[in-house]
Amino acid sequence: MNTTTPAQQAMQTLLEQLGPIAVLIGDDVPARNRNDYSGFEATRPLAVIRPADAAGVATAMRICHEYGVAVVPQGGLTGLCGGARADGEQVALSLERLVGIEEIDEASATMTVWAGTPLETVQKAADEAGFFCPLDLGARGSCAIGGNLSTNAGGNRVIRYGMAREMVLGIEVVLPDGTLVTSLNKMIKNNAGYDIKHLFIGSEGTLGIITRVVLKMFPKPASTMVALCAIENYAGAVKLLGAARRDLGPLLSAFEAMWPDYWQFITTNVHGVRNPFAGDDTQYGAYVLIEATGTDPEIDSARFNAWLERLLEDGTVSNAVISQSVADQHALWNVRDSVGELHQLWPGHLAYDIGLPVASMNEYAQRCKAQLEAELPGCQSVFYGHIGDGNVHIVIYLPGAAKQPKDAVDEIVYGLVQQYSGTVSAEHGIGTLKQRWLPQARSPEYLGLMKTLKAALDPKNVLNPGKVI
Amino acid sequence: MNTTTPAQQAMQTLLEQLGPIAVLIGDDVPARNRNDYSGFEATRPLAVIRPADAAGVATAMRICHEYGVAVVPQGGLTGLCGGARADGEQVALSLERLVGIEEIDEASATMTVWAGTPLETVQKAADEAGFFCPLDLGARGSCAIGGNLSTNAGGNRVIRYGMAREMVLGIEVVLPDGTLVTSLNKMIKNNAGYDIKHLFIGSEGTLGIITRVVLKMFPKPASTMVALCAIENYAGAVKLLGAARRDLGPLLSAFEAMWPDYWQFITTNVHGVRNPFAGDDTQYGAYVLIEATGTDPEIDSARFNAWLERLLEDGTVSNAVISQSVADQHALWNVRDSVGELHQLWPGHLAYDIGLPVASMNEYAQRCKAQLEAELPGCQSVFYGHIGDGNVHIVIYLPGAAKQPKDAVDEIVYGLVQQYSGTVSAEHGIGTLKQRWLPQARSPEYLGLMKTLKAALDPKNVLNPGKVI
Repeated sequence: MNTTTPAQQAMQTLLEQLGPIAVLIGDDVPARNRNDYSGFEATRPLAVIRPADAAGVATAMRICHEYGVAVVPQGGLTGLCGGARADGEQVALSLERLVGIEEIDEASATMTVWAGTPLETVQKAADEAGFFCPLDLGARGSCAIGGNLSTNAGGNRVIRYGMAREMVLGIEVVLPDGTLVTSLNKMIKNNAGYDIKHLFIGSEGTLGIITRVVLKMFPKPASTMVALCAIENYAGAVKLLGAARRDLGPLLSAFEAMWPDYWQFITTNVHGVRNPFAGDDTQYGAYVLIEATGTDPEIDSARFNAWLERLLEDGTVSNAVISQSVADQHALWNVRDSVGELHQLWPGHLAYDIGLPVASMNEYAQRCKAQLEAELPGCQSVFYGHIGDGNVHIVIYLPGAAKQPKDAVDEIVYGLVQQYSGTVSAEHGIGTLKQRWLPQARSPEYLGLMKTLKAALDPKNVLNPGKVI
Repeated sequence: MNTTTPAQQAMQTLLEQLGPIAVLIGDDVPARNRNDYSGFEATRPLAVIRPADAAGVATAMRICHEYGVAVVPQGGLTGLCGGARADGEQVALSLERLVGIEEIDEASATMTVWAGTPLETVQKAADEAGFFCPLDLGARGSCAIGGNLSTNAGGNRVIRYGMAREMVLGIEVVLPDGTLVTSLNKMIKNNAGYDIKHLFIGSEGTLGIITRVVLKMFPKPASTMVALCAIENYAGAVKLLGAARRDLGPLLSAFEAMWPDYWQFITTNVHGVRNPFAGDDTQYGAYVLIEATGTDPEIDSARFNAWLERLLEDGTVSNAVISQSVADQHALWNVRDSVGELHQLWPGHLAYDIGLPVASMNEYAQRCKAQLEAELPGCQSVFYGHIGDGNVHIVIYLPGAAKQPKDAVDEIVYGLVQQYSGTVSAEHGIGTLKQRWLPQARSPEYLGLMKTLKAALDPKNVLNPGKVI
């Protein structure tokens, strides 16, 4: 008579087939596999499975599928929305042993890499081969490329290079039933049937587990120009965006807007941030950091300076500081990157990552701020973002509150998003954190189609169940 | 007692609900809806349905789904693989009345357009708004943007701007059961759930009917430089590709390679083609047309010339002609574009559109040519293509043959493709023409996943049945 549960039988089979190094059960589950960066409480998965290769991932998935044990894929665990958290009934499948660059093909300008490889390793390998990996985000040292792709990561250079999705040529995935699909295409052009890689990129590990990818590599920029511009109002910032797109063309690599609330708070309160416009007491309506990268330092830089000169003359830009050195570039970027310091200044603050059509952003920001102040007196908020990509970040804080009023703020932020045909997640994903708000961004028919896809690929609902949809 | 067939009942219901302008039955089916550019025989669909709007497309699809009548979506009917041909048991659903630009949003740099709009109209509208639509192909005057997207069209500027897929931000589609899914997203960044648009782009109308799209618009190039280069051998062409990527960076907009067989045939036999290297009797190993576009005519052109000068000096390029005028540019492009003339010189020739990793292309070309000559004595072939995108075109002709030996040539061309991990269709798609060869490019697991998707979205198999898979 067999008195063990299906989960226990699954563990036994996993141990037999993958060995004890690959299967850590119960209290042996390491602390790092119990949480991500979402701020949710830590949970201990039933076990952590750490296969050594793609065949091992397929075996693990096949066994869990057979016994009906839910599997949660884990990469670098730097996600912000809870997509990689596994509970006590679920198995965490970690890609941490699938690491390394398999091949660099210079002629095709591609890199084939295992999914558990940290993004920073990918960046360095591209650099050493004379190429550039434009995907970049704060967690580069810890996040895994597989996680970057399963969440379709964004970042600061999307305006030039696109989202993570656009850097992928080939993919290898394990389906929820354990089928291994290997499609390590290196060609930019391949119209032989459906392009299935896009199903797995951005679906947060709910449709398949990415084990290996072929990434496009890009030419290494030889010149970098950075300027910080002060502009009369938001309409002026949109005009500047148009001019940057038109005149810098494909050299434009970042266009980061900061609303005055953000600018004043960061330059006043964050230690170590130098106000590039110190001494200029004008209250500007918008601030923009522009970065361009090119192939010839002398020519590109002279041209960039002349271009900004013209914009200052014709009044599009009211004041501007141009970097003269790499140190300058860092100092200018620092105003934008210092947003991380808000964790200390506004402990427990609420952070949002929404998307809106460019033309609606300022109206949205004004209405959102007004509504926050009206409904939550004393509420502070700062707005900034990659406006050229339709992406605004908002940090919101109610000083003195025992607990930040998340639900009330969610209602205001996401309620308004729907009115402007925006999105509740521009780059961080849905996970479990934003599930409730997904209908603000997607129609019932769209959500119905997502459910059809999930049911078709994972009818037993064993792969990352309860996430996204 | 009802003696009519389900198809007749469907026609009756369609007539009632959409009116006689939208439903042409039997002999009333216009000649244009009976074929595409695939070279297959014309067939007369049961009827042509021409709804006036997306709701009409949804209604038509719902009725046909209900009665089990197969629907074949039709755009400009310029496809080369038979994807839009409907037979006597099927209804052709033409998007020809869904035409026009709905909106241009300058701040978001987007255009919202109906699926039946000719590509050329889209290009002109972008141009008039001060933007650029980089998608371009020979059939621009007749092909519809919806067809371009359902086949994920490519073309000459993919190396810079990507395939048609990468120009799409939002989509509206009618599913096989008649559900209308509207997702006219304008944001570059939107990670709210699965990105379903990629399912419909490139699936050749087998998963849904695209009715409306939001396209990204690009900055209009202000300068164009074109050069034709003669290179010692293919390895030198790959080296030149590396140099062009690195030194021209994002300005590189086309890199078209021509093998010596192509070059000699075209410059010798096509009337009106001027050999830019006339007088130079050296037999070169490869010819490359390079185009770069930038934002400043003077600076960009001086830089382009200096760059080529260096490559001539260091021997990467053996001989080169740089355009001095727009007329020159056309003359240089003419060598590449004159391939269309082969229809006259080699009537009934066989044309292939394959993909290969860049490093394998020349070995492939040599083996393919040798095998063709060995198995089909007297067989002629020319090779050329967008090598930076991993795309080679081949034109093959057996002089004097009563009928071109398609099956034997297919075996050679596609058999070798599989050995090099290539693809049987880089840009033209599968339709019915290449179905037999799809397994050379995709694994059984990959094909299985395609079938799962088709079955999930179209369980009754009523939308473009028998195409692609």
